[in-house]
Amino acid sequence: MADHLARAVELALRGPAHGPNPRVGCVLVAPDGTVLGEGWHRGAGTPHAEPAALDDARDRGHDVTGATAYVTLEPCSHTGRTGPCTDALTRAGVAAVRYAVEDPNPLAAGGGEVLRSRGIDATYAPSRAAWEVNRRWLGAVAHGRPWVIAKWAQTLDGRTAAADGTSFWVTGEEARAHAHGVRAEVDAILVGTGTVRADDPALSARPPHVAEPHQPLRAVMGMSDTFGAKVWHDENAIAIRSHDPHEALAALEAREVRTVVVEGGGTVTTAFLRAGLVDEVHAYIAPAILGSGTNAVGDLGIGTMGGALRGQDVTATALGVDTLVTAFFQRGPQ
Amino acid sequence: MADHLARAVELALRGPAHGPNPRVGCVLVAPDGTVLGEGWHRGAGTPHAEPAALDDARDRGHDVTGATAYVTLEPCSHTGRTGPCTDALTRAGVAAVRYAVEDPNPLAAGGGEVLRSRGIDATYAPSRAAWEVNRRWLGAVAHGRPWVIAKWAQTLDGRTAAADGTSFWVTGEEARAHAHGVRAEVDAILVGTGTVRADDPALSARPPHVAEPHQPLRAVMGMSDTFGAKVWHDENAIAIRSHDPHEALAALEAREVRTVVVEGGGTVTTAFLRAGLVDEVHAYIAPAILGSGTNAVGDLGIGTMGGALRGQDVTATALGVDTLVTAFFQRGPQ
Ligand SMILES: NC(=O)c1ccc[n+]([C@@H]2O[C@H](COP(=O)([O-])OP(=O)(O)OC[C@H]3O[C@@H](n4cnc5c(N)ncnc54)[C@H](OP(=O)(O)O)[C@@H]3O)[C@@H](O)[C@H]2O)c1
Ligand SMILES: NC(=O)c1ccc[n+]([C@@H]2O[C@H](COP(=O)([O-])OP(=O)(O)OC[C@H]3O[C@@H](n4cnc5c(N)ncnc54)[C@H](OP(=O)(O)O)[C@@H]3O)[C@@H](O)[C@H]2O)c1
Repeated sequence: MADHLARAVELALRGPAHGPNPRVGCVLVAPDGTVLGEGWHRGAGTPHAEPAALDDARDRGHDVTGATAYVTLEPCSHTGRTGPCTDALTRAGVAAVRYAVEDPNPLAAGGGEVLRSRGIDATYAPSRAAWEVNRRWLGAVAHGRPWVIAKWAQTLDGRTAAADGTSFWVTGEEARAHAHGVRAEVDAILVGTGTVRADDPALSARPPHVAEPHQPLRAVMGMSDTFGAKVWHDENAIAIRSHDPHEALAALEAREVRTVVVEGGGTVTTAFLRAGLVDEVHAYIAPAILGSGTNAVGDLGIGTMGGALRGQDVTATALGVDTLVTAFFQRGPQ
Repeated sequence: MADHLARAVELALRGPAHGPNPRVGCVLVAPDGTVLGEGWHRGAGTPHAEPAALDDARDRGHDVTGATAYVTLEPCSHTGRTGPCTDALTRAGVAAVRYAVEDPNPLAAGGGEVLRSRGIDATYAPSRAAWEVNRRWLGAVAHGRPWVIAKWAQTLDGRTAAADGTSFWVTGEEARAHAHGVRAEVDAILVGTGTVRADDPALSARPPHVAEPHQPLRAVMGMSDTFGAKVWHDENAIAIRSHDPHEALAALEAREVRTVVVEGGGTVTTAFLRAGLVDEVHAYIAPAILGSGTNAVGDLGIGTMGGALRGQDVTATALGVDTLVTAFFQRGPQ
């Protein structure tokens, strides 16, 4: 069973990391262990993983009556852009379902219960690997707001810009290429008007070796006008005329954004941290020392070391001479 | 040849990392390739690697006439605590010498030339591995002052202490144990009077699984009296009543200190950086965010990103949830 679920996780990862829907994989297995069909969700508007696997089995000429479906996420029981997967599995005569993560989406949840009520042996078989595939999406759906990654590039002594405001370039090419890769995995990038004025960034995703990456929505937060800046080079951009991170996230949620990278500057990043709205931090750290300038994060009202926000599930990755440290943060007050 | 030198490097690493002398290894090889003797330097006051290898060959009953000596460092040609190694090699009838690093010590240098003038085939055979063994010592000797490692523990956003002055604990146990291991490898630890007043540290080396580690000299820099603090718990400590990092290093040099770790606080670390006297940085980075407090490094008079001090030969090591980033820095003005 673990093998079939591991395979389902592999399939799930073929789907896009961005977009409103989770990445899901499904493997259909006959009682004798033969794999009958495989499927994964290719993004909003395309079939879910379960119907994709059922189609695959049919294309291969297999009957799935009595089969077990291994799915990385609880099958949905609602009609969205596609019909409920619980119905597709029932109609196909599947006898058992093993799902690795319970669906936190109040609209889609309860699929396991629906299947059981129809006499199908549906069991929740938790898997950390399956949970990690959709960690950000699951967090976003559970809290009804986009998952927030705060990203910055800093010197070893914690500065994101020098005293004269320059921040080109803190980090080297590998680190910048990596950050472009992350942009291509998320739904939106958000910066403050200050960063637009100071740096006039294009905020596009230019990962190396990818011809046409997905371009996230660009969001600029603040009251002032930045018309004419590069960020407005096409219509995939919005101005959020507010200083309230909750309002910003609501505006993004309305556009089905599940993951947003807050790329600064310090004012905006600090506002999100202060509101307890940062779920993940990506700090690109250059082996450079400035001694003055701007810090990545400003006052959060934390006066003592014991009160520091503490991250977990830390990774440290060498990117050329730079180091990327990532960590997940417990949510503060909403 | 590369193999014999690699072996000599292995032997060199058996010597202590601290102390006034470099770590040196020597392998004596007969013309037919037989290894006749091996030796390494065990620290000041004990035989150098070459006589140790000659002794080893004698103990094994080997005649070294016509042999080649592979040495990680150019044989010395001066009489210090022991006689010149050039004489020992000559007397023993060694025919050839391959040394992997030239001796930068003006007192001891020129050994290769001395050997050649005596008709011995002495050749400089550069090896990065051999150079790395004594990187700090070589830097110290070349510049006539201790090699300076600036070490600090910071939050992800670059703070070494919170607004109320607390800095216990920024990092976790693994990171602190690692730092104690580094202390056991150096000759001295230096802090400012501010750190003694704030934290009253013992500044001893307590690496795990080491019964009796070498204890570095403890140095406290500043004008004020810190009598009664833990740092004075035994006589292996000095007060440096100065604000001038050059004076501090001269005081340490006078005690044969080759490597000193400057452990803060910010005032002292900044003074060393400002004077261009930091050769290596060890930043222990916790996945924590404070948003205010003290930065590891204060004003260096660098106003723009292009002027930042840039490190090289960077390493990033995960230590529990923390990350240690190390880098070597080009020397600034002396
Ligand atoms: N190293 C890096 O990773 C990095 C990344 C980005 C930027 N930077 C550097 O950071 C500097 C810009 O930083 P910054 O802090 O000035 O820029 P910012 O955070 O991008 O923008 C600040 C502006 O956004 C508006 N705003 C939005 N939300 C706000 C809130 N909650 N509170 C207050 N104002 C809010 C305000 O302008 P309105 O008047 O329009 O409302 C404010 O002046 C530049 O030097 C840039 O180069 C560095
Ligand atoms: N996270 C970490 O890695 C770490 C490490 C160490 C300390 N800390 C924290 O750092 C804080 C202490 O920092 P600090 O900067 O006050 O302490 P500091 O650098 O240890 O000591 C500063 C004092 O040293 C003397 N001094 C020596 N050289 C000087 C110079 N060139 N210029 C000016 N003064 C000089 C002065 O006192 P006199 O009047 O005696 O001359 C000065 O007040 C504490 O909160 C401590 O917990 C953190």
